[in-house]
Amino acid sequence: MDDPVLLTGASGRVGQAILGGIADDYEWRLLDREPPTGDHPGEYVVADITDYDEVRAAMEGVGAVIHLAGDPRPEAPWSSVLENNIDGAKTVYEAAVDAGVEKFVFASSNHAVGAYETDERTPEMYRDHHELRLDGTELPRPTNLYGVSKATGEVLGRYYHDEHDLDVVCVRIGNLTEGHPPIDYERGQAMWLSYRDCAHLFDRCLRADYDYEIVYGISDNDRKYYSIDRAKDVLGYDPQDNSAHFEGEERVHGPEA
Amino acid sequence: MDDPVLLTGASGRVGQAILGGIADDYEWRLLDREPPTGDHPGEYVVADITDYDEVRAAMEGVGAVIHLAGDPRPEAPWSSVLENNIDGAKTVYEAAVDAGVEKFVFASSNHAVGAYETDERTPEMYRDHHELRLDGTELPRPTNLYGVSKATGEVLGRYYHDEHDLDVVCVRIGNLTEGHPPIDYERGQAMWLSYRDCAHLFDRCLRADYDYEIVYGISDNDRKYYSIDRAKDVLGYDPQDNSAHFEGEERVHGPEA
Repeated sequence: MDDPVLLTGASGRVGQAILGGIADDYEWRLLDREPPTGDHPGEYVVADITDYDEVRAAMEGVGAVIHLAGDPRPEAPWSSVLENNIDGAKTVYEAAVDAGVEKFVFASSNHAVGAYETDERTPEMYRDHHELRLDGTELPRPTNLYGVSKATGEVLGRYYHDEHDLDVVCVRIGNLTEGHPPIDYERGQAMWLSYRDCAHLFDRCLRADYDYEIVYGISDNDRKYYSIDRAKDVLGYDPQDNSAHFEGEERVHGPEA
Repeated sequence: MDDPVLLTGASGRVGQAILGGIADDYEWRLLDREPPTGDHPGEYVVADITDYDEVRAAMEGVGAVIHLAGDPRPEAPWSSVLENNIDGAKTVYEAAVDAGVEKFVFASSNHAVGAYETDERTPEMYRDHHELRLDGTELPRPTNLYGVSKATGEVLGRYYHDEHDLDVVCVRIGNLTEGHPPIDYERGQAMWLSYRDCAHLFDRCLRADYDYEIVYGISDNDRKYYSIDRAKDVLGYDPQDNSAHFEGEERVHGPEA
């Protein structure tokens, strides 16, 4: 990828994990609604993703997009996810197609499929002897309206791939925490994504060839109910971390959501 | 279903097909943005589905909802489907849950999966020797933003079922034409839905027991690439018509989209 990579929502947690690992490997154009608070690689554009003209201008000359921007709160109200996550995603896809972008990486979420975790299945499904594996071919089952908005972003990606030839990969991001997995939180351990695996996975999304894909973004945890086979096979994802390696270590923090 | 049935978009084509068949079988509350133009059964409420308070008032005492209202144009612009079909559907689902409605029938569309009709598969897939059958378990592949909005309505239904115990059936409606199948239009013949089968199918959606379902709404056409097995098994759908029975008859009309 010689052309600049547009990273929306660059100042958020996922954006920081990505830049922490691969800041030096691409020419970046960072976009966020908030101005930068520290050093950053490449250009920085302050823009709202629901403003087509601003997004289209930021898209000029871009080879690939990593679209993270949106309301990240699982409990976000409908009015916000409708505007920021659904209309916002549509605006960014549209601008990408209009600018001739090749690859589009969409940050989806475990909340798009959270309702597979039924009362009957939990907490057993969070443990390493459980056989259930979601693999990205299943229909969404969102636990909240945020998850609905992420599932819609996936469908928008399918449309822009089928009808406008944009190559799209949707990453259903698990539980991203820095340094170590969530403590005393089996669900978070099962879907843990370490910062370095996150950066590596998005690096693969920028380099690999694909048409339209939905993959799970988690480390290679012993406990998991998301398959990472598709990410390995199509993207060449080769995760280094596993939440099981932290079991029994000193518990320095409480559980994180 | 002894309680009234709320029918949104009552004045549209699907609403008229339903009322043409089962007007006398339920106590209806009809809702449409436009005032009635002729006789109609039951109450008639003029309201916009994006207005929660209006919809909630119309929902009072209702046992089941058939939600047809929305922009029906496959070529509808994003601004319209975002407001009328996505935000509108969310408003109607929300009001239904708040009013304690039992069953929700969502009018989805063949356009939610139109992109399975690839250049490589067509027109062979429209013919009766072709083996492809979409059955409602496949991920959406919309051909247009209208189809994206219908896929989103399905996901909203999944959410309101899983998190709010609303029983939901999504009907991916084929090509509804009155009297006879589309002429000289293989795609339309493969997904033809006669008026009487339409009324019968929605009748079954009001009477059957289900949790969350996605079914295809077509007649029992020889040529089909949508399975009607699920509609038969879960809903007791027993279609009477078949577009093949009209082949060779006088062609009184041109093709309809």
